[in-house]
Amino acid sequence: MRAVRMHQHGGPDVLRVEEVAEPTPGPGDILVRMRATTVNHRDVWIRKGHPHPAYRVELPAILGIDISGEIVGMGGAVEGFAIGERVTANPYIPCGRCRYCVRGRPQYCPHFTVFNGAYAELVAIPAIQAVKLSPLVSDVDAACFPNTYITAWQMLMGKARLMADDVVFVWAGTSGLGSAAIEIAHLAGATVIASAGSASKLDVLRRLGPDLMLDHSCPDLVERVLEFTGGEGATVVFEHIGQATWERSLALAAPGARIVSAGATSGDDARMNITQMFVKQVQILGSRLGTMEDAFAAGKQLNAGRFKPLVGATIPFEELAEAHRLMEAGEVIGKVVVTAG
Amino acid sequence: MRAVRMHQHGGPDVLRVEEVAEPTPGPGDILVRMRATTVNHRDVWIRKGHPHPAYRVELPAILGIDISGEIVGMGGAVEGFAIGERVTANPYIPCGRCRYCVRGRPQYCPHFTVFNGAYAELVAIPAIQAVKLSPLVSDVDAACFPNTYITAWQMLMGKARLMADDVVFVWAGTSGLGSAAIEIAHLAGATVIASAGSASKLDVLRRLGPDLMLDHSCPDLVERVLEFTGGEGATVVFEHIGQATWERSLALAAPGARIVSAGATSGDDARMNITQMFVKQVQILGSRLGTMEDAFAAGKQLNAGRFKPLVGATIPFEELAEAHRLMEAGEVIGKVVVTAG
Amino acid sequence: MRAVRMHQHGGPDVLRVEEVAEPTPGPGDILVRMRATTVNHRDVWIRKGHPHPAYRVELPAILGIDISGEIVGMGGAVEGFAIGERVTANPYIPCGRCRYCVRGRPQYCPHFTVFNGAYAELVAIPAIQAVKLSPLVSDVDAACFPNTYITAWQMLMGKARLMADDVVFVWAGTSGLGSAAIEIAHLAGATVIASAGSASKLDVLRRLGPDLMLDHSCPDLVERVLEFTGGEGATVVFEHIGQATWERSLALAAPGARIVSAGATSGDDARMNITQMFVKQVQILGSRLGTMEDAFAAGKQLNAGRFKPLVGATIPFEELAEAHRLMEAGEVIGKVVVTAG
Amino acid sequence: MRAVRMHQHGGPDVLRVEEVAEPTPGPGDILVRMRATTVNHRDVWIRKGHPHPAYRVELPAILGIDISGEIVGMGGAVEGFAIGERVTANPYIPCGRCRYCVRGRPQYCPHFTVFNGAYAELVAIPAIQAVKLSPLVSDVDAACFPNTYITAWQMLMGKARLMADDVVFVWAGTSGLGSAAIEIAHLAGATVIASAGSASKLDVLRRLGPDLMLDHSCPDLVERVLEFTGGEGATVVFEHIGQATWERSLALAAPGARIVSAGATSGDDARMNITQMFVKQVQILGSRLGTMEDAFAAGKQLNAGRFKPLVGATIPFEELAEAHRLMEAGEVIGKVVVTAG
Ligand SMILES: [Zn+2]
Ligand SMILES: [Zn+2]
Ligand SMILES: [Zn+2]
Ligand SMILES: [Zn+2]
Repeated sequence: MRAVRMHQHGGPDVLRVEEVAEPTPGPGDILVRMRATTVNHRDVWIRKGHPHPAYRVELPAILGIDISGEIVGMGGAVEGFAIGERVTANPYIPCGRCRYCVRGRPQYCPHFTVFNGAYAELVAIPAIQAVKLSPLVSDVDAACFPNTYITAWQMLMGKARLMADDVVFVWAGTSGLGSAAIEIAHLAGATVIASAGSASKLDVLRRLGPDLMLDHSCPDLVERVLEFTGGEGATVVFEHIGQATWERSLALAAPGARIVSAGATSGDDARMNITQMFVKQVQILGSRLGTMEDAFAAGKQLNAGRFKPLVGATIPFEELAEAHRLMEAGEVIGKVVVTAG
Repeated sequence: MRAVRMHQHGGPDVLRVEEVAEPTPGPGDILVRMRATTVNHRDVWIRKGHPHPAYRVELPAILGIDISGEIVGMGGAVEGFAIGERVTANPYIPCGRCRYCVRGRPQYCPHFTVFNGAYAELVAIPAIQAVKLSPLVSDVDAACFPNTYITAWQMLMGKARLMADDVVFVWAGTSGLGSAAIEIAHLAGATVIASAGSASKLDVLRRLGPDLMLDHSCPDLVERVLEFTGGEGATVVFEHIGQATWERSLALAAPGARIVSAGATSGDDARMNITQMFVKQVQILGSRLGTMEDAFAAGKQLNAGRFKPLVGATIPFEELAEAHRLMEAGEVIGKVVVTAG
Repeated sequence: MRAVRMHQHGGPDVLRVEEVAEPTPGPGDILVRMRATTVNHRDVWIRKGHPHPAYRVELPAILGIDISGEIVGMGGAVEGFAIGERVTANPYIPCGRCRYCVRGRPQYCPHFTVFNGAYAELVAIPAIQAVKLSPLVSDVDAACFPNTYITAWQMLMGKARLMADDVVFVWAGTSGLGSAAIEIAHLAGATVIASAGSASKLDVLRRLGPDLMLDHSCPDLVERVLEFTGGEGATVVFEHIGQATWERSLALAAPGARIVSAGATSGDDARMNITQMFVKQVQILGSRLGTMEDAFAAGKQLNAGRFKPLVGATIPFEELAEAHRLMEAGEVIGKVVVTAG
Repeated sequence: MRAVRMHQHGGPDVLRVEEVAEPTPGPGDILVRMRATTVNHRDVWIRKGHPHPAYRVELPAILGIDISGEIVGMGGAVEGFAIGERVTANPYIPCGRCRYCVRGRPQYCPHFTVFNGAYAELVAIPAIQAVKLSPLVSDVDAACFPNTYITAWQMLMGKARLMADDVVFVWAGTSGLGSAAIEIAHLAGATVIASAGSASKLDVLRRLGPDLMLDHSCPDLVERVLEFTGGEGATVVFEHIGQATWERSLALAAPGARIVSAGATSGDDARMNITQMFVKQVQILGSRLGTMEDAFAAGKQLNAGRFKPLVGATIPFEELAEAHRLMEAGEVIGKVVVTAG
């Protein structure tokens, strides 16, 4: 089969289409013919050789976190799946044996791995990581699902326990995570305030229908949120920007609000006025990837046709390196999707 | 009656014993003959004229948050109390009419006040703020209760939902708040690790029986906590120090731990590595004073004889200024209590 | 002013239009010109002289729980309201002074009262019970809100903590409570299965758009629910029928499901196989009326135009007795609303 | 090795000491030399041939749920255990692969099994079910732990979320489950009311130190509970009796109380006044066996020396049939323990 492999770290051109051996599914694995995958920040960081141990891979490596495709084979221990079924999969794979996993807390597993390998025609995946797809969902939309919607579901539902009475503030509403958060918050009946950083992004954001839109850089952003909420502030803040937004996240949060945080694309090094935080009795809830609980729950909504991922570009498999280039250029608004022939 | 009043901000000697008119209880108030009160940081800050609006009082002022005493009168609308009963009181007084209060969330009331006025022979207190005392509790112990135990109860029970399986790390275990936290954590069946900042404080701390004691300044404090907990860390961190301890609080927290924060005696300006926080999926829970829910619950334990406050000095009412001096000198380990004749 | 009063218990004709003195609002009350009210089971029970103490009133009495109208006056202590504003009100009035109220748990107040008095041109209501109305909501729709939507919100949100992944089974989906539950469950993103007891009711139910509709009396109702849910069952059961449905509620509940119960229109005397209940680890959550927390949260959705109450008949104020007749006849599907001139 | 096997259902004498082949541990199993086991109702029901599918076993069968012993071997995939370590084990074994298990909700696994096999000199156990023992715990005490303390921990902690302010009512306080509940409630700081059904049991109960003791059959039991709690009632009711106690459990429960139910030794067929239940807003929480979350948490307390199981009789392995006889006679107060040579 063909796969996009890298033999060394570097620019997009280290990603080359090659002929490799087909993967053999283990006893509990399904074998999936990939229909679509995407480019995530994580793929770019790994490709470049990011020093954090979480981004280390053995070379040569086939990257790719997100997948949608069709089952074409499976190991002998797999139950409940059939050849021809369409699936996507959760890239967060807990170890299943540590003290956290055994206690029914897989989200805290210290020995988890993150799936890599979707940049190939055939992909072996543990069946317990798979989510079946309904005919209502396209391959492209399904490929946009795993790394953003499952993560955002864990943040808003698993961590913040979002309810219909909440007012959610979403930073960077046209990003993969941000747009997923807007859709999830809407379907749960919540009010949504979202920000974007440019006129063209605000145009795209408008289509997602937030109840209030704000420009990142507008100097009275916090005041606008307070005004819109009758002086109280947002009851949930969806944080994935970090250093650049942290102080404003605290300032626009309502008394008792939950600030759920799972990313720091602008930097790690936050400053926080502790007294401001505790006098407001804010809850800051750190979050990471989502579990199968989130995958099944969000997948049910995906299958009901309630998610319409923002797709910014669709690139054929043979030009996957170009997809990485687009992603890094930062000019595409929405997901960069890669489709198999 | 006699009261200790201040006519201007300044040093301890602005606190003067004077003859003033007896307070008249309102319809819902009880009139209490004060038996004991204490000195809190808050009293000192108000006396000195701290610029924060929360510490502003009209002059002349009678300070004093904590009280224990005997009911000697009451307004016509008071039910359920009798002359001669001994009481203490919760200094946190929500407005009762705002949107938060009406919704049954008095802990988020933005219009709350904090009681002042215990530095007097007679004190009028809203009856709904009072907690009855059992004969098992001394006046001195009861005076140590309101501002520390109610606050610590809200932090550990109301916010962190402490359970018997938790390992609680308590900073400054001989402080008023810290020692209350150790006692509360113990009675809830939790394991307790506590720190102190000097040899003499560690001696006092030993009497509170933490499962592990550590010196604040010990360079491997975080490693010692991890070692004691089999590599996992503390599941609850009791934070009231702020800037000086914040990074270590994060480092010694277990995956999914709750860091409950209600003070910043070392300063407000924390730095936090956001990725470290969210990868661990830590919960940072800001807290403030406690509600009547906490007052009744903690009061029940006080009345059962389960709390033994650390008393560092007992000063007669006439020398209340001296009590402030001792408090500011920082040499007393435990509460500075002031007793009526 | 004119009011519909009863001087004795009995049939609908004890309800007579009379000229009575205008009510004087207390210091914390608003005076409301009634635009619409409704007939509830509770009104009928009180009119007939139901022996339960909760339904006892002093005669002569003006009944009427639900109200929508316009503010025409107010007491001196009222803040935040203006003459001319349109409001509805929560009929559940906690005492505000008992141990439950003081602890911020007004839903457990043992000394609560339920508002009566809407069958009049002018009505005095405590301002803290009022919810403002937006221009999007008609007087008729607003009058249908208090006794059903606030109660259903407490059941589904306050008690069952409904989330988007839930499958909710609603008995009697065209009843006031049932139809409110369907609308609330939908806006929270949940899947809805609803039942009705006749062909004409199923026709009306269809307009509420449940994901699955079932006839009460269909012998394989439980099997149909299991089949629809892949064998798991409903994760939330909305119970307000009682004796006639209790066993089926348990049988169609998923492992770990919440059965939220706030009514027993078919009778009180349930039988339950305890082992079946605990082996499934079901949670049975008793509920009563809703608090201001629920009133504000549900009211926000009402004001956003998300609720379309089922109105079965609209009767002028002068013919209020006729409205009671219709209600008792049980032939109207949807609320019986009474409108002021 | 020797084991006590049954070749047919029947009285105690079907239990015979026989020579059988030693078990071979699977890759993930530890091999344990049994030091002590116990007799549970479940063992008796299985021995007699109870018709419920949960109690069906293939014959010949080695029964025995509870175990304490020493590791003498292990499979190749076992990590974190060493030969010579002492262990006990959780008999509740979720499947690990179903939708509930995969979602981190092993307590709802519909495909779980309950361990049998402790009536033998050597026992193979999945390592992930094991809990290590500290030197503070005797073999006999450790054998009393699994089926009662883990179950009671899940009931009180996992389901009822017991906190220090609760008042727990425990039926049958000298039974295995009841006495475990008393110890757990005490270590969590709660107040405990417990009942027993005879003078001799009340004598034993006294040693467990409940805050109030009541005779089952005392006609004013409910009134006594209300009186002791200032009219409010118990905030948690520990239910494992069923039919005979159900109505009193509801009557003595406080508004908003949790009734946690995991047994029906007196019969399944409960009657319940639904209105009484929902007007009080009671929560009825069905529970089953406990998970490894409970096993580790309760095990930590066991290892700290905080549990002192009631042991009523200690019988040598060779006389295991006699242990069953004693258990059925119902004259032993406390656990019937069986010890290896
Ligand atoms: Zn793991
Ligand atoms: Zn307030
Ligand atoms: Zn009340
Ligand atoms: Zn399972």
